[in-house]
Amino acid sequence: MKGFMSDNTASVHPKIIEAISLANSGHAIPYGQDDISYRASKLIESTFGGQCHVSIVLNGTGANVVGLSTLLHPFDSVICPETAHINCDECGAFERYTGAKLIPVSTEDGKIRIKDIDPLLSAIGNEHHSQPRVVSISQITEEGTIYTIEEVAELAKYCHEKGLLLHVDGARISNACVALGVTFKEMIADTGVDLLSFGMAKNGLMYGEAIVSFHKSSSTLKYARKQGMQLMSKMRYISAQYEAILKDDLWWHNAKQANAMMTLLVNGLRQVDGFTIKNNPSGNIAFASIPTSVARALENMNYFYVMNESLDKSYIRLVTSFDTTEDEVNSFISLVEKVKV
Amino acid sequence: MKGFMSDNTASVHPKIIEAISLANSGHAIPYGQDDISYRASKLIESTFGGQCHVSIVLNGTGANVVGLSTLLHPFDSVICPETAHINCDECGAFERYTGAKLIPVSTEDGKIRIKDIDPLLSAIGNEHHSQPRVVSISQITEEGTIYTIEEVAELAKYCHEKGLLLHVDGARISNACVALGVTFKEMIADTGVDLLSFGMAKNGLMYGEAIVSFHKSSSTLKYARKQGMQLMSKMRYISAQYEAILKDDLWWHNAKQANAMMTLLVNGLRQVDGFTIKNNPSGNIAFASIPTSVARALENMNYFYVMNESLDKSYIRLVTSFDTTEDEVNSFISLVEKVKV
Amino acid sequence: MKGFMSDNTASVHPKIIEAISLANSGHAIPYGQDDISYRASKLIESTFGGQCHVSIVLNGTGANVVGLSTLLHPFDSVICPETAHINCDECGAFERYTGAKLIPVSTEDGKIRIKDIDPLLSAIGNEHHSQPRVVSISQITEEGTIYTIEEVAELAKYCHEKGLLLHVDGARISNACVALGVTFKEMIADTGVDLLSFGMAKNGLMYGEAIVSFHKSSSTLKYARKQGMQLMSKMRYISAQYEAILKDDLWWHNAKQANAMMTLLVNGLRQVDGFTIKNNPSGNIAFASIPTSVARALENMNYFYVMNESLDKSYIRLVTSFDTTEDEVNSFISLVEKVKV
Amino acid sequence: MKGFMSDNTASVHPKIIEAISLANSGHAIPYGQDDISYRASKLIESTFGGQCHVSIVLNGTGANVVGLSTLLHPFDSVICPETAHINCDECGAFERYTGAKLIPVSTEDGKIRIKDIDPLLSAIGNEHHSQPRVVSISQITEEGTIYTIEEVAELAKYCHEKGLLLHVDGARISNACVALGVTFKEMIADTGVDLLSFGMAKNGLMYGEAIVSFHKSSSTLKYARKQGMQLMSKMRYISAQYEAILKDDLWWHNAKQANAMMTLLVNGLRQVDGFTIKNNPSGNIAFASIPTSVARALENMNYFYVMNESLDKSYIRLVTSFDTTEDEVNSFISLVEKVKV
Repeated sequence: MKGFMSDNTASVHPKIIEAISLANSGHAIPYGQDDISYRASKLIESTFGGQCHVSIVLNGTGANVVGLSTLLHPFDSVICPETAHINCDECGAFERYTGAKLIPVSTEDGKIRIKDIDPLLSAIGNEHHSQPRVVSISQITEEGTIYTIEEVAELAKYCHEKGLLLHVDGARISNACVALGVTFKEMIADTGVDLLSFGMAKNGLMYGEAIVSFHKSSSTLKYARKQGMQLMSKMRYISAQYEAILKDDLWWHNAKQANAMMTLLVNGLRQVDGFTIKNNPSGNIAFASIPTSVARALENMNYFYVMNESLDKSYIRLVTSFDTTEDEVNSFISLVEKVKV
Repeated sequence: MKGFMSDNTASVHPKIIEAISLANSGHAIPYGQDDISYRASKLIESTFGGQCHVSIVLNGTGANVVGLSTLLHPFDSVICPETAHINCDECGAFERYTGAKLIPVSTEDGKIRIKDIDPLLSAIGNEHHSQPRVVSISQITEEGTIYTIEEVAELAKYCHEKGLLLHVDGARISNACVALGVTFKEMIADTGVDLLSFGMAKNGLMYGEAIVSFHKSSSTLKYARKQGMQLMSKMRYISAQYEAILKDDLWWHNAKQANAMMTLLVNGLRQVDGFTIKNNPSGNIAFASIPTSVARALENMNYFYVMNESLDKSYIRLVTSFDTTEDEVNSFISLVEKVKV
Repeated sequence: MKGFMSDNTASVHPKIIEAISLANSGHAIPYGQDDISYRASKLIESTFGGQCHVSIVLNGTGANVVGLSTLLHPFDSVICPETAHINCDECGAFERYTGAKLIPVSTEDGKIRIKDIDPLLSAIGNEHHSQPRVVSISQITEEGTIYTIEEVAELAKYCHEKGLLLHVDGARISNACVALGVTFKEMIADTGVDLLSFGMAKNGLMYGEAIVSFHKSSSTLKYARKQGMQLMSKMRYISAQYEAILKDDLWWHNAKQANAMMTLLVNGLRQVDGFTIKNNPSGNIAFASIPTSVARALENMNYFYVMNESLDKSYIRLVTSFDTTEDEVNSFISLVEKVKV
Repeated sequence: MKGFMSDNTASVHPKIIEAISLANSGHAIPYGQDDISYRASKLIESTFGGQCHVSIVLNGTGANVVGLSTLLHPFDSVICPETAHINCDECGAFERYTGAKLIPVSTEDGKIRIKDIDPLLSAIGNEHHSQPRVVSISQITEEGTIYTIEEVAELAKYCHEKGLLLHVDGARISNACVALGVTFKEMIADTGVDLLSFGMAKNGLMYGEAIVSFHKSSSTLKYARKQGMQLMSKMRYISAQYEAILKDDLWWHNAKQANAMMTLLVNGLRQVDGFTIKNNPSGNIAFASIPTSVARALENMNYFYVMNESLDKSYIRLVTSFDTTEDEVNSFISLVEKVKV
């Protein structure tokens, strides 16, 4: 049985495999100069309204770090939630590649707010301190919460007023769009975001990620990508995946399924005695407090991540994906009810 | 018609596509902890005799740079031929990621020799100079030449006597093994190489590259890989490719075809008036001096790279790949003969 | 009138000027190979008990960053108080030079404790996270507090048990030794500290700082120093200063005066209505909450730094130095009493 | 007896010591915000005609690396002679701090020419290659030769036409100005140089170096300096030295003496049987081929550096400084004549 450990454990959507196979015909100019890559870039650009520049890289860390590097001097800093993937889960890739500093901000729910940013801006102009230049948020956040369109727009407006830029780590941007019922353009271009890591590997792709930049520094992306070891030689095989995931709203259907299964899952778990769901997840990630006896009984089965545990309570993370089924959700709920007894 | 611009323009071998499709079943633990990745790593290790450690990354630049980083302090240097891919064609990725220095050495044929290295070692112990620590060679070289087994062994022995380590950029290591009629183990492990970038993307794979380390610092590879933005989440899809290319000696058949087609090609071109083949290529890369009139007539058709040109002569690079056919070679020879007139 | 803005505003002790003048005779081998530098290094080593290695650099940031670089891989992290100089006041020098990560820890009084470190060690062995390797403390802290000998020893013991190392930013180490009545050896070598930034520029020197390493990686210091742009050509002029400051306990007399003047100052300010002294400073730094009306009246006179202010209260930093006099302290107290009215 | 090993072995000019002593009065705002530093910066700026920005750092490597960093993206490259100090003698500081690449060019006499640069510019616009952005020359060169004013102007013009910038490592710029009989302004500002490392430590100063930037990126110098660990707290003591060396043309008198002594020295050595002077040195550095028997007899006396030696001939470097005397030159010539016999 598939579990809820991560959307990274999911398989690749059959239509993506099909697109890869179709791309496998004859020779093609490498490094993104082929026809499929040209079409894919144009398609992504138009998805965001056209006033942007696209650069396809190899994975999410690559997109975050290479993308941000084009906005920064090494003496600059990026303000982000303490829980940000770029701060916690990328083994210091940001610092090593950019030379710049992350300023982690403690948050309640993974969402950064203007009041968190404001006190940090006194560093501006003072050479003893790294210079705040970018605010980086994740949508959906690492805590499973989702910024509203208005919140994103408000952050972007604030940043621009203060001479800062706004970056979105969109590893699960599809799930956020589905949850809010908005398009990518409405979420990103229309709110004033400057840079997006446009991830699809958690939503059915095999590999690859797209940097979408709305900033004039995007002319340096191609060099930063190559120097960042993120330029794929046989690019057509990534580009074909992006074409396929955007075609016929496959991204939407995939994310919709993941979100729906999460709703089913948390509704079920809420009925289980001793289970508490944190926040009110509307995407595909949830956090729950469960009896440690249950967590222990199921450990080594890769059903979920245990974030931390005490004697009686364990705090776990659950993630659904496009290939999660109702049967799997129901089976899991039955299992925990049985184990709990 | 397919040309000879690069082996990066080639497609992916059908058996690789098949392996990817087969891997696409159910969920799997991400980041290389899945069964396929375990098997692939063990298979690669045993291919090299077992006394090594394997780390799968995303591309050749990633393998070169992340691998070398585990052998170096930032105040060290790597001695390499001026023509080395790591020096010329990776946009400074080495310097930025490792902080260390490349010492390029001018060579006649892309092969570095002990006499080139020796004068540079006077820097050892002197804090004003970067400390020579690694010699990096490419097999086959960027000039299309191939080190004999004895030459590799001699370099390794020399390096170890001097406190240095030997790295091989094996982007085309299969073609070298076929040309010399030796196994990977004989080429690398038995000669004393310390670190190998084990590339297969130019020999039928879609993406991914393996770092093979014989050095004790290999315990740091996993951190260097992640920090180097080279850790794939859905790793099974790369691992399956490595399994497939090593199975039934697919790598050998692919490289054999590429080499054979190059032999056919250069033998044909040697007959063309005004064409001179440099060196005596036995792998899948050749360089030729041809009339500039011919080069100009064929430009924009992506048949080859023009390295440089003068009024009457152009210096071009030709590369064959596993999917090059006799017909294509013969058609090209016919074409140039026609154009030349 | 001299103020209390920083001990960086102080002049250079006359005996230091004298030592520099005396060193200015004839030629000397550069880059620390001269006689004075040899003597100074031996003297510093013996000051710490002899089982250490000394490397003289140019300033405190250089000592912190270059010293720490010898203990770290770029994928490691350093745990430090959020208020640490290396985190707040060095413009990201650490991140850029080492490529590694700082993990800032929120503290009440600038002192880090085992309970702050312990939860962070779960990252060890997990490639997604920077690897905790060093704990860095400042003595005296940026909040003016001082670790007891026992606290330092306890931290060192804990670090070593966990496979970590302990670094001390000793920009004001003299003031701490005087406050606790201990020698440098008792403070550093006997407690098990692995690396010290041995600063004297805030205690009467003109320039220069010594890295004192008790770790085997000290053999790499000379290269890290040169690559870190921290090797002085005419080294004798720094070495002569270290000889002079250690001779006849000049360092002790200087720090004793600074500490005594701080005691006088805070005792005086405590009597002023509306003034509150934070903690109970025993070194040469104090923080005070004072009426904003007073702070505003004195601004632009460089008497102190205003850390932050609200409508009615301002939070200021006061620092004394070796050349602070009783008259100056008394004059300042009189001034604020006058201004307050 | 003082020798000719390096101008780094020289003492500090008495007027510099005097200026330092005079600066040692009372308190002063640190980090260059004091009155002396303000005056010194203005003085240096006016020395170069006023249309520039000055940033004082700690040493020559700091000036080269921090200065260049403000002109470069990490994916850029700097073209320099193979013999450049920044390439050979700074332990990779450039690569580590900037992340960028040095492209060393082989030269006959340490001087780079347009024909050396031109072939390298084909990399521009190609993401596989580091992007040429700066040409760096040393004046006087590490080979003791001197660019004419016309040569510098021609290089600057060429660079600007090609979208490049020109940097001068002026560790011995005073000696060049004296040799050519021109002012600093005529040498640097009027020729179109974009960035200068304005060194005086080899011409009588104790420590410190000034970055003089004519480029708009100079607004980032203050952050690059701090992050580069090159900001001195008690800045007034460097600034006072720059004031003193520029006052009453002390720099000119010092360099004139050094150059004159070199003329005396090479004229004398030319008469010695078996001695050959390379080039025709007009500054304060010379290279000579001498009998190895003589070099061996004098080794360990620090009279000169032996660059390399064969059985019968040794190639040595000789440097004079402001405090070299006629007696010392004559004594040395007598000594070698005696040893030679």
